[in-house]
Amino acid sequence: MSERLSGETPEERLTELGLSLPPSPTPMAAYVPFTFAGELVFTAGVLAQREGKVVVGRLGADLTVEQGVEAGRLAGLSLLALLQAALGRLDRVQGLVLLNAYVRCAPDFVRQSDVADGTSKLLLQVLGDRGHHARVAVGVAELPREACLEVQLTARR
Amino acid sequence: MSERLSGETPEERLTELGLSLPPSPTPMAAYVPFTFAGELVFTAGVLAQREGKVVVGRLGADLTVEQGVEAGRLAGLSLLALLQAALGRLDRVQGLVLLNAYVRCAPDFVRQSDVADGTSKLLLQVLGDRGHHARVAVGVAELPREACLEVQLTARR
Amino acid sequence: MSERLSGETPEERLTELGLSLPPSPTPMAAYVPFTFAGELVFTAGVLAQREGKVVVGRLGADLTVEQGVEAGRLAGLSLLALLQAALGRLDRVQGLVLLNAYVRCAPDFVRQSDVADGTSKLLLQVLGDRGHHARVAVGVAELPREACLEVQLTARR
Repeated sequence: MSERLSGETPEERLTELGLSLPPSPTPMAAYVPFTFAGELVFTAGVLAQREGKVVVGRLGADLTVEQGVEAGRLAGLSLLALLQAALGRLDRVQGLVLLNAYVRCAPDFVRQSDVADGTSKLLLQVLGDRGHHARVAVGVAELPREACLEVQLTARR
Repeated sequence: MSERLSGETPEERLTELGLSLPPSPTPMAAYVPFTFAGELVFTAGVLAQREGKVVVGRLGADLTVEQGVEAGRLAGLSLLALLQAALGRLDRVQGLVLLNAYVRCAPDFVRQSDVADGTSKLLLQVLGDRGHHARVAVGVAELPREACLEVQLTARR
Repeated sequence: MSERLSGETPEERLTELGLSLPPSPTPMAAYVPFTFAGELVFTAGVLAQREGKVVVGRLGADLTVEQGVEAGRLAGLSLLALLQAALGRLDRVQGLVLLNAYVRCAPDFVRQSDVADGTSKLLLQVLGDRGHHARVAVGVAELPREACLEVQLTARR
């Protein structure tokens, strides 16, 4: 997907996509936004947000799959903002490791993968070959602040 | 458990158990089946499958604990197939680290551990002393493709 | 939060808080309580327990937020007991990495963060500056043995 973009740095590719990063999410509780362990960077879980407001609702009830994909994309921007805050510049990301996606959904909603693809595809577009990652996507009963999606990322610096 | 098996390699022990590995799971979305970070190997989440078909249903409603254990065993075979694809041979697995098990279940089903044991015991049988791992087992509301179980494994190479 | 405590070691701070560690949790299934990978220590998931009995119930139905916070604190004591068992002494913990909190809750309960803060704040009180961690908190449908909370921790030694 990244092949179509001519930007040489992740930040240039973001501009080319017409996107800008939101402020790096600030935990509202007793934890920190990211930690390091050797070459690994662990983000905290981030909720899908649009202009600072949590995207609320339940997939399969209040939100369509398309809205879920867009929420996934927004959550991906927050993950990139966290990585930029952690490392200074996104080209210091050497690779991604594992994305955990928790989708809040109504009974019998089974398209968690489509929602998580919203996040995954943005990461690939912006980080290019360094954006590949393994992934777990599950449907959860409830999320903090009625959010529709929470994602957590492990990366290499 | 592995003591009873005389096979010297994980692949020989699989044969002794009358088991063969399924094809390594191929992600159907924008992620990769495994990643590396130093000595660590991270698999993507895999769904319990029998002969290429997802084992669907909800523990405590559509499926018995025994069927869940069998699904756990099948999911374990997929994890081994992923590790074999990642490392070439299973004797290159130096140890396991953490197994995450997400069990799709009906309200008040509380035997997630039994289902996850289906996976854990297979890993121990095949990998022997290198198969020990920490584990998290939770009950989730929904899983992709109506699967009854999703598991993700971190290992050392 | 740790500033108010004068104890120099984590064990001294526990005493100062009037707390003692429970026995290190013993898995009741086919897994081990912790594993190592390089500098990383991974605990298994532990259930909130009081004097050896699982704290059961569902947040937002059977348990209040305050009871959830207390369950979080109890679960934090179990995590510390695991780390002590893994490393011999808690001052061998170099730092924490990621806390995963799975809160069993009723529909529309959205204060998973408050419950997880029960765990996070205890870790900070006892480990001081080495207690900072990233965190994921989600609401799950069901947990083993009807527990109200399961937590898993990754740390550095």
